[in-house]
Amino acid sequence: MANEALKSFKPTPASIPPPGVSYRLRVPDGTPVHYHALNPLAFVLRAAQIYPHKLAIVHPDVKHPVIYSYAVWAQRIQNLAYALIKAGIQPGNTVAYIAPNIPAIAEGYHGVLAAKGVLCPINTRLTQPEVAYILEHSEAKLLFVDHEYTHLVQGTKIPYIVINDTGKEDCPYEQFLTAGRKFSAERGWAGLEWERNEDAPCGLNYTSGTTGRPKGVLTTLRGSYLGAIANAYETGMNRDSTYLWILPMFHASGWTFPWAVTFAAAAQICLRSVSYPHIWNHLINSGVTHYCGAPTVQIGLINDPLARRLEKPVYTIIAGSAPTAHLIGELEKINIRPIHVYGLTETYGPSTKCYIQPEWDALPLEERAKLIARQGIPFATAEEARVVYPLQEGQSPDAPLVDVPKDGKTMGEIVFRGNIVMKEYFKDPEATRKAFRGGHFNSGDLAVWHPDGYIAIMDRSKDIIISGGENASSLAIEQELASHPDVLEVSVVARSHPKWGERPMAFVILHPQRAAKWAGRHGAFEQDLKAHARKRLPGFACPEWVSVVQELPKTSTGKIQKVELRKLVAKL
Amino acid sequence: MANEALKSFKPTPASIPPPGVSYRLRVPDGTPVHYHALNPLAFVLRAAQIYPHKLAIVHPDVKHPVIYSYAVWAQRIQNLAYALIKAGIQPGNTVAYIAPNIPAIAEGYHGVLAAKGVLCPINTRLTQPEVAYILEHSEAKLLFVDHEYTHLVQGTKIPYIVINDTGKEDCPYEQFLTAGRKFSAERGWAGLEWERNEDAPCGLNYTSGTTGRPKGVLTTLRGSYLGAIANAYETGMNRDSTYLWILPMFHASGWTFPWAVTFAAAAQICLRSVSYPHIWNHLINSGVTHYCGAPTVQIGLINDPLARRLEKPVYTIIAGSAPTAHLIGELEKINIRPIHVYGLTETYGPSTKCYIQPEWDALPLEERAKLIARQGIPFATAEEARVVYPLQEGQSPDAPLVDVPKDGKTMGEIVFRGNIVMKEYFKDPEATRKAFRGGHFNSGDLAVWHPDGYIAIMDRSKDIIISGGENASSLAIEQELASHPDVLEVSVVARSHPKWGERPMAFVILHPQRAAKWAGRHGAFEQDLKAHARKRLPGFACPEWVSVVQELPKTSTGKIQKVELRKLVAKL
Repeated sequence: MANEALKSFKPTPASIPPPGVSYRLRVPDGTPVHYHALNPLAFVLRAAQIYPHKLAIVHPDVKHPVIYSYAVWAQRIQNLAYALIKAGIQPGNTVAYIAPNIPAIAEGYHGVLAAKGVLCPINTRLTQPEVAYILEHSEAKLLFVDHEYTHLVQGTKIPYIVINDTGKEDCPYEQFLTAGRKFSAERGWAGLEWERNEDAPCGLNYTSGTTGRPKGVLTTLRGSYLGAIANAYETGMNRDSTYLWILPMFHASGWTFPWAVTFAAAAQICLRSVSYPHIWNHLINSGVTHYCGAPTVQIGLINDPLARRLEKPVYTIIAGSAPTAHLIGELEKINIRPIHVYGLTETYGPSTKCYIQPEWDALPLEERAKLIARQGIPFATAEEARVVYPLQEGQSPDAPLVDVPKDGKTMGEIVFRGNIVMKEYFKDPEATRKAFRGGHFNSGDLAVWHPDGYIAIMDRSKDIIISGGENASSLAIEQELASHPDVLEVSVVARSHPKWGERPMAFVILHPQRAAKWAGRHGAFEQDLKAHARKRLPGFACPEWVSVVQELPKTSTGKIQKVELRKLVAKL
Repeated sequence: MANEALKSFKPTPASIPPPGVSYRLRVPDGTPVHYHALNPLAFVLRAAQIYPHKLAIVHPDVKHPVIYSYAVWAQRIQNLAYALIKAGIQPGNTVAYIAPNIPAIAEGYHGVLAAKGVLCPINTRLTQPEVAYILEHSEAKLLFVDHEYTHLVQGTKIPYIVINDTGKEDCPYEQFLTAGRKFSAERGWAGLEWERNEDAPCGLNYTSGTTGRPKGVLTTLRGSYLGAIANAYETGMNRDSTYLWILPMFHASGWTFPWAVTFAAAAQICLRSVSYPHIWNHLINSGVTHYCGAPTVQIGLINDPLARRLEKPVYTIIAGSAPTAHLIGELEKINIRPIHVYGLTETYGPSTKCYIQPEWDALPLEERAKLIARQGIPFATAEEARVVYPLQEGQSPDAPLVDVPKDGKTMGEIVFRGNIVMKEYFKDPEATRKAFRGGHFNSGDLAVWHPDGYIAIMDRSKDIIISGGENASSLAIEQELASHPDVLEVSVVARSHPKWGERPMAFVILHPQRAAKWAGRHGAFEQDLKAHARKRLPGFACPEWVSVVQELPKTSTGKIQKVELRKLVAKL
């Protein structure tokens, strides 16, 4: 689809809703006049009411592109809700999705809520047994699966609907919607009831879980509503914004962006995969203003041959790991403005933000980047993030948590509480109890607390390297190694050492334009990088080993899987 | 105070909080990990945490100007909370304020909540007996009164504290704060407890009530939180914004802007009175980006001799009555961008917004202004505004409300429901029941509903003119008369007529630069205006009488008091 179609979007007459269409669901009897249960479904309805003819969602880079105005899209969402009810979905039932970033799953984020169901998006990179486990554990009653991923549901007993991703009449998903429309008997939104309880479940997001079975993070309508508003506000999205789907929608409810985008009444562009040519095409030609991505995605972006300075600023929400000075500098050079946020699936994705202080603008990039790389302060609607002394094994789970001093040195664990913390791990009271020790969600992330109130992650607790009795932060080491001009990406893990207990081992991808310089001379590069490290790090934190690799093992969201690197190291 | 001080605000060392200061109140035992009671107190605490050294509030145009950073201001608010508790304020107790737009009342909006009190701001233009009634009805336990208004509380038995508005040690209010600080014994925020119930009362706002006793509109913490976020988002306020206090803070909780400004971590400028020289000075020199004001204030602003085109756009939130095409055009000429919102004290002030559709930009001003003058669509977090057939006397209050057709013609009453509707009229179950007929708040405003979903007020039900059996909207008549080039301001009311029952009578203020033209020839002006009207209005809506006046009776928020005009007319 030509990008011109996107820029000059004009709805076809068929997309114009009849005058007087109402976007109100029935309010349950007995609801007080001054109460309306918070529910992010409200946003798409409001957007359709205000801007019926505005571009809501477009899926351009496929054989059969689709483009929907808010009015048409809201109608599709309504059809989905009725179809789910027709299919027997009851309030609280789980509806699973296995799909890349296509309109159908975006529709699910609203339509499933309108049917009072719970949306369980499943990572498309999982194996068939992993998917089977999640489908069973989540008690999914119905499943939507993209045509590319049907092999993942072979043999499942759960009824499923295949999405051909064409928007054409012969697509089973489209037929499902059409049946929903018929079933609605034109009762419209008023034929559906607003969920009475804002603490009702909204999403069931299975964590990637590097060890053991994945856990189902249960979110609420209230949390999703408040999280989405915060994301829209903190990233400056409004009705003139265009959001590009790079971050998978299946990851942590897409960090609540499926709702944040509709709160802002912005437009969204779907993408089946992280394809840099397509991304650059949209950044240059489609008026994109916002996208989310982990640093590794950003590294790919700035190093793509198509990369060039953008005319208008584009805001990128970076999380997953801290951006390095090098990355921030490169992004800024091409007019991409990083917004560094931090959170976990258990906190609806972003929950803290590294607020840029006005006076930082005057600092040199290296210094500024160090400040920006910190995880920051709870953002709008997120109430509390603290760094506390970790509870010791055997200590009472009710023992009050004690803050570490705000000295930028003492390491503790980041804990959260408030409206954008998950309700529980689904059907796992034991894990919930453990995660909620001390009346807070215990993140497992180790951090220091700076005097200015900013939290800075040092490491996941399991990623700390204990070298000669000293705690070395693998993240801090990575930050310094990444400042070497020839390093594209780097990951550091502990490797056992006969004398020091553990020592850091670095896995490095060389910058493609600089790799030739070291071809056949990786030993020389190793010496060069070690010398670079010694100038910047204490001895115990300098890498003992450096391995140049072609790629690093990553999760679907682009997080480096250190568990895989550790497995590798264990075999050395 | 020089405006330079504002622009180049640098906190004094004393204003820098000690490192590690915590902005967390104690969370009540038993609060779930994933729950935090919504409360707009959260915003100022977050602003102080993120931007301790940023300008929070300034009071420049007084003999003893004050200027506070967020850290210092938060400390003052904390002192106030402790002082209130020391003074015996219990959760749910009413604390009253009689003050213009000075820092002390802005502090009250946060400090009273921190003490779990209920803030009752009293209109400074009321008479002593009216104030006495409110103090008694609200059961105020404590009263803050600005030094200029102490005559209003003569003889009251309620303990009160005088605010000299100097910020100096000898001010009783400052002494009160100092005593609070001592009483806190440096327990800080952690010595105070977060209110557990978000449905708890927040504000008690007495409506001006043109007939009968004023009614106390009771708001909740939840509603104030959600209303303030919506106002910050819908007006585009952020940490770089500067808000100028023209709208009285005592009016409908200042439309929630005392909290919206802190949600945005913006700066606010206080003003003791609506002084156009001061306002223009700040618009030109102090970096103001936002202010709220009724059309009548805006008319004064554009006609002030100091008026000139502003370098950077300033956003003005207009409510109270619809802006005319003339007003919109004049504001735009000087780079002031109107945001037209609508609401009542019972809806926390703004609750709908006239969203500007992109295609309106291409329309001629007259046409565009007609669209912008409509009251619009419920805004972010406001759930439902409808136009329904008014319930008839004698009809069951539980009878379901029926929407009028969205035809732009059929008149009905605007009703609201949702989180930003008041909880009740304090101690007036009868009035509450009446206002909440049909499970909605019945606004008393008559409107039509346009096919595009926009609500447009025709009149307050009591302002409709029944002329020859036809319903004539006084607002619609005013809109047309205001387009006469020599009219500065106009108000239309019904006057009884022997043949037609009622006929419109217009009260007109001539434009100061055009008044000379009609000096001694008001009869000629009357003919000219009537001819102007006949070209634009049906016969029954044309004014039968025109009276040129020097001023119009107004409420403290600048609303024209038609009740006074009707009294005048009754004597003719």
